[in-house]
Amino acid sequence: MSKYTRNKLRVKLHEIIYEADTPQGKLFDVVLLITILASILLVMLESVESIDKNFHDFLNISEWIITVLFTIEYIARVLTVKKPLNYIFSFYGIVDLLSTIPKYISLIFGGIHALAAIRALRLLRVFRILKLTRYLGASNNLMSALRASRAKISVFLYAVIIISIILGTIMYLIEGEENGFTNIPKSVYWCIVTLTTVGFGDITPQTPFGQLIASFVMILGYGIIAVPTGIISAEYTNIYKSGKDKEPKTETGNSKKPVHLNSQCCINCLAVQHQDNAKFCFKCGRKLN
Amino acid sequence: MSKYTRNKLRVKLHEIIYEADTPQGKLFDVVLLITILASILLVMLESVESIDKNFHDFLNISEWIITVLFTIEYIARVLTVKKPLNYIFSFYGIVDLLSTIPKYISLIFGGIHALAAIRALRLLRVFRILKLTRYLGASNNLMSALRASRAKISVFLYAVIIISIILGTIMYLIEGEENGFTNIPKSVYWCIVTLTTVGFGDITPQTPFGQLIASFVMILGYGIIAVPTGIISAEYTNIYKSGKDKEPKTETGNSKKPVHLNSQCCINCLAVQHQDNAKFCFKCGRKLN
Amino acid sequence: MSKYTRNKLRVKLHEIIYEADTPQGKLFDVVLLITILASILLVMLESVESIDKNFHDFLNISEWIITVLFTIEYIARVLTVKKPLNYIFSFYGIVDLLSTIPKYISLIFGGIHALAAIRALRLLRVFRILKLTRYLGASNNLMSALRASRAKISVFLYAVIIISIILGTIMYLIEGEENGFTNIPKSVYWCIVTLTTVGFGDITPQTPFGQLIASFVMILGYGIIAVPTGIISAEYTNIYKSGKDKEPKTETGNSKKPVHLNSQCCINCLAVQHQDNAKFCFKCGRKLN
Amino acid sequence: MSKYTRNKLRVKLHEIIYEADTPQGKLFDVVLLITILASILLVMLESVESIDKNFHDFLNISEWIITVLFTIEYIARVLTVKKPLNYIFSFYGIVDLLSTIPKYISLIFGGIHALAAIRALRLLRVFRILKLTRYLGASNNLMSALRASRAKISVFLYAVIIISIILGTIMYLIEGEENGFTNIPKSVYWCIVTLTTVGFGDITPQTPFGQLIASFVMILGYGIIAVPTGIISAEYTNIYKSGKDKEPKTETGNSKKPVHLNSQCCINCLAVQHQDNAKFCFKCGRKLN
Repeated sequence: MSKYTRNKLRVKLHEIIYEADTPQGKLFDVVLLITILASILLVMLESVESIDKNFHDFLNISEWIITVLFTIEYIARVLTVKKPLNYIFSFYGIVDLLSTIPKYISLIFGGIHALAAIRALRLLRVFRILKLTRYLGASNNLMSALRASRAKISVFLYAVIIISIILGTIMYLIEGEENGFTNIPKSVYWCIVTLTTVGFGDITPQTPFGQLIASFVMILGYGIIAVPTGIISAEYTNIYKSGKDKEPKTETGNSKKPVHLNSQCCINCLAVQHQDNAKFCFKCGRKLN
Repeated sequence: MSKYTRNKLRVKLHEIIYEADTPQGKLFDVVLLITILASILLVMLESVESIDKNFHDFLNISEWIITVLFTIEYIARVLTVKKPLNYIFSFYGIVDLLSTIPKYISLIFGGIHALAAIRALRLLRVFRILKLTRYLGASNNLMSALRASRAKISVFLYAVIIISIILGTIMYLIEGEENGFTNIPKSVYWCIVTLTTVGFGDITPQTPFGQLIASFVMILGYGIIAVPTGIISAEYTNIYKSGKDKEPKTETGNSKKPVHLNSQCCINCLAVQHQDNAKFCFKCGRKLN
Repeated sequence: MSKYTRNKLRVKLHEIIYEADTPQGKLFDVVLLITILASILLVMLESVESIDKNFHDFLNISEWIITVLFTIEYIARVLTVKKPLNYIFSFYGIVDLLSTIPKYISLIFGGIHALAAIRALRLLRVFRILKLTRYLGASNNLMSALRASRAKISVFLYAVIIISIILGTIMYLIEGEENGFTNIPKSVYWCIVTLTTVGFGDITPQTPFGQLIASFVMILGYGIIAVPTGIISAEYTNIYKSGKDKEPKTETGNSKKPVHLNSQCCINCLAVQHQDNAKFCFKCGRKLN
Repeated sequence: MSKYTRNKLRVKLHEIIYEADTPQGKLFDVVLLITILASILLVMLESVESIDKNFHDFLNISEWIITVLFTIEYIARVLTVKKPLNYIFSFYGIVDLLSTIPKYISLIFGGIHALAAIRALRLLRVFRILKLTRYLGASNNLMSALRASRAKISVFLYAVIIISIILGTIMYLIEGEENGFTNIPKSVYWCIVTLTTVGFGDITPQTPFGQLIASFVMILGYGIIAVPTGIISAEYTNIYKSGKDKEPKTETGNSKKPVHLNSQCCINCLAVQHQDNAKFCFKCGRKLN
């Protein structure tokens, strides 16, 4: 196989694996999606004792098939990128690696299967679900709203924690150990449970005065939920509006659709979000396929 | 009865059954509404053992009366429409049929009353409540706001599920089977219960570290509720505003009322939402009565 | 006492009782406020067995003092109004009457104190708290926002009830009587508890499939809370903005304060919310004092 | 040491302690931050019996070190301010004092360690977390939104309490003492737990009618949460927008950054929030360092 043919094959594979604008690329994505979901289901079912007992071999074999598929995918991803290290140390590179190795590790330490650390490691496979975030659509402005209001939300969460610590301590004093508030960390935990309106009910105030303070905590929690909501609401309204303002108008009077990003991915630097009519990578200048 | 008279009767009946702008049409709607509510009440009461024991015959007879009424309604609806198949396979056609048949089926399999499948089928009658959605007012823009923000809400729900799976697995590792987190699906269930701030309290973390992670889950859930709220809030503000902008102004300076849709329903194609001054169906061109 | 003096006294008393723009009127309001709060506290404490046992006489005497005060207030209100029937059958007239009579009734039926109906009637006194709504400030636009979005909120609540009935029935089928879902009304109750994210935990799904449906209910409830919030948010933003737009600008460039309503109350027709500089009742034209 | 040198030292120290725009000032702030967090952690761990038993001496010595550090800080703060009384009776002055003295008091009453009042006093140390609010960034407009909507939120909370009292009394009548609603205050507590969607589940309605009322309370609580959210949302949108409107535009067409407040603090009157280019205190006119 000449160097040229090999290169062409690599370009072809890159298109299939990293992009979704060819039929093969779409097929690859659908197969990958199903494999990921099946793999998550396997991890979950394996933890159910009655299922694991009856279908152990089936689960084990399925897990091996998926692991092999992920191994092939990982190797293919590494080989078809010009700068493999860029991929390997990217977020998805690490997620892809962690999605693949747990089964191999369980093979090495097979005899000591019950070891907690190994068991934990094997559950790392659940992080495979993060592979799905690839399909989340990077262009949505949900993240922009969250990022824009990050500072204010931090202040809010910070205030929630300060309130919980102070009111948790007060509840510890009032209710005391005999009513389940055995120590301050537990009281603070109760206060967070109450302030966030979760209300498990595993610990509840028993004294009238404790119930009064609890009522105050609940009404406080019920009221301050409005604060982050108001913040994100305002930020989002703003982003939405400024997005509208910027939209160029066409001669027909209709506003042009927002610039859609195509699903191409640069073979050289893995940059995505190229515009639909892009011919060259906006980041490294390499020709796009 | 001549064909003409028969046709006239059908047009008359169509007006009564499908429309609400004649006194008879309004009466029909009110009677139907009451029948539906009574029927739902019957299904509910029947499931209460003590009531079913004491009033079995009364409930049974009432149920038969309602079933007969619904049968007549269904047949009348089929007969008075020009294209019966359009109605039969429409959403309401299917709901109307399912609202009627369970009692007949229970008659056929009367002897094997306790059979779970039959019992389930009989409970189908509760879907009769969907008949009520006919009166919901199709013109409200609640649905528009939801539809406009559908994509963003999907991303949000998707994120909630990913977070629940990952944090559920982590809680399974930390708390383990001895504290109620018997398997990963159950842990994920707990995580959804906590993240959505429902907090049943049937499963609660017992270890300090588990309670720390739980606190994080709760504050996360308390905070991210702001995201869908902000989205719908912004979408709705937008729809509300654009609706206002489009509203034509009259000479008196007051804005005209929004175009009210009348309650007429085309005898030919069942299209609704004709404007008040409409004389012909906007969909098939047939004259409206 | 001449008719003129009597009339003058009545006008004076009307000013004290119904208005708050004289020192005596303000004093009357403060005393009434304290009496109402004390009366609510009494009703509550009376229901606590240990307190009722130890302080029965004190509570009883206090209750009589308050009842006498309320009786005097009621009679004074009736006497100082030109058209007493208007007051008697107004919302506050009825509340004032119901706040006064329970103690007298308990006197009549004193011997049969434990009778449930009488006990219930005596608790009517808690509705005295509605007397407080007089001080809520009628001019706030909270009510306008709620009224403007009433129709949409009704549709929303209606949808919540339909969803609860259908999902409640499904849960009854899945979980069955052995897991606490003993009948459909109870299942629907559970569904409302879950959908509204309250989550008591007195009934919880035990089967894996039931927990799956429950997860769906919870995420649904967590998501649709955004709908009423978005509606009121949009309505309120709108009211707030239109309120601003209408505000007349003064020459100094600053916007004038919104027209404050004074606390005068017409002696003839009990109309309130007269403008500060009003000299005559805007409703019946009578001169204001 | 001459008066001049002493004065210069004081100015230097003031800069370090009260300000954060010199390297030493920043270092001081970081050390203080860590000390506060460590101190909160100590208070919490001390309340956990198993930890207190095993690490009592370590916790005690750490607590003394922190107390000494806070003492030095307090004295330094008092000495470096021109008008010490201003500081001492300011919010932070009181917080700093209360953060320091509990350990000394526990020394005096060492023998009667278990005394509840002393134990409570020692827990005052948890209020040290309020020292953190110094770092919250006073310039954020979260507080403005809250302050602007204070009146409306009060009306809302007030309505919540009235609803809870009335519905709590009704539930007390319906459910009665045998189902956990032992007295009205407890019923009102239950009603607040339910209305705020916390739902502990320690008290739950058992009768069908009680569950119906509870359903109503829950849907009410689920719906009215939209009210404060809508208020703050609208207020915040408004503040956000008016903040934008006021922003002066530069010649380049970009809007100028909002005026950032520097971290200087007047040595004379402790006023903060001076503009970045401020040379003199805007409050007392003293030269800033």
